[in-house]
Amino acid sequence: MKVDSAGLEVLSRTECMALLGSATIGRIVFTERALPAVQPVNFVLDGEDVVIRTGEGSKLSAAARDAVVAFEADEVDPVRHTGWSVTAVGNARIAREPAEIARLSALPLTTWAPGVRDHFIVMRTEQVTGRRIRR
Amino acid sequence: MKVDSAGLEVLSRTECMALLGSATIGRIVFTERALPAVQPVNFVLDGEDVVIRTGEGSKLSAAARDAVVAFEADEVDPVRHTGWSVTAVGNARIAREPAEIARLSALPLTTWAPGVRDHFIVMRTEQVTGRRIRR
Repeated sequence: MKVDSAGLEVLSRTECMALLGSATIGRIVFTERALPAVQPVNFVLDGEDVVIRTGEGSKLSAAARDAVVAFEADEVDPVRHTGWSVTAVGNARIAREPAEIARLSALPLTTWAPGVRDHFIVMRTEQVTGRRIRR
Repeated sequence: MKVDSAGLEVLSRTECMALLGSATIGRIVFTERALPAVQPVNFVLDGEDVVIRTGEGSKLSAAARDAVVAFEADEVDPVRHTGWSVTAVGNARIAREPAEIARLSALPLTTWAPGVRDHFIVMRTEQVTGRRIRR
């Protein structure tokens, strides 16, 4: 078991992707007016890509237009003090090809917020890191 | 009720600080080797400052040394599709004064990860934004 400088278990890419696949909510981190912005989103994995549904005019859709973003998901148990966290960094783009949009529309990805959410952000998980806290 | 371009309710600073005060886990966003890094942490509010406990040699302690960081907390209900998210941006510093360290040590802030965590990161919540999703 590999442990980092803070005493946390270092997860492999395979473990990280499995944990991401088990989560339904994550946080996309992007830059807005030169400041970091964080937005919780529901998502689904498409292979090893993170897919998020958003509206055309949303800040997220503007920010994730061919930009490097970070995506984080975690599950922390505040009572048992256990949990994991996975962060992916990679390029995000808006799906433009009708065939790809049709395919992404069939993914089990519902949107919660009101309004039309017919844009898909596809983020490559180029760098993936993860940690687990065990007692 | 103010609503943003994505149809989400925009929260006031007062509402944001009250929600932050109700949370025990958040995520600190910083830059590591020019890439965004996200780390879940438990925290406590000290007035309007976010206080995090960490170890001396930790990446977090290095990254938060007089740097502008972001801090996010949220509570999302995946079944009811409701929730809130608050993000603060501001300068973070390591507490150095013995009197301040003594005062911070008395805050209800336990550390989960193994090892000694006797460093306190104090982050000013200079810019605070928050959104709420309602059905």
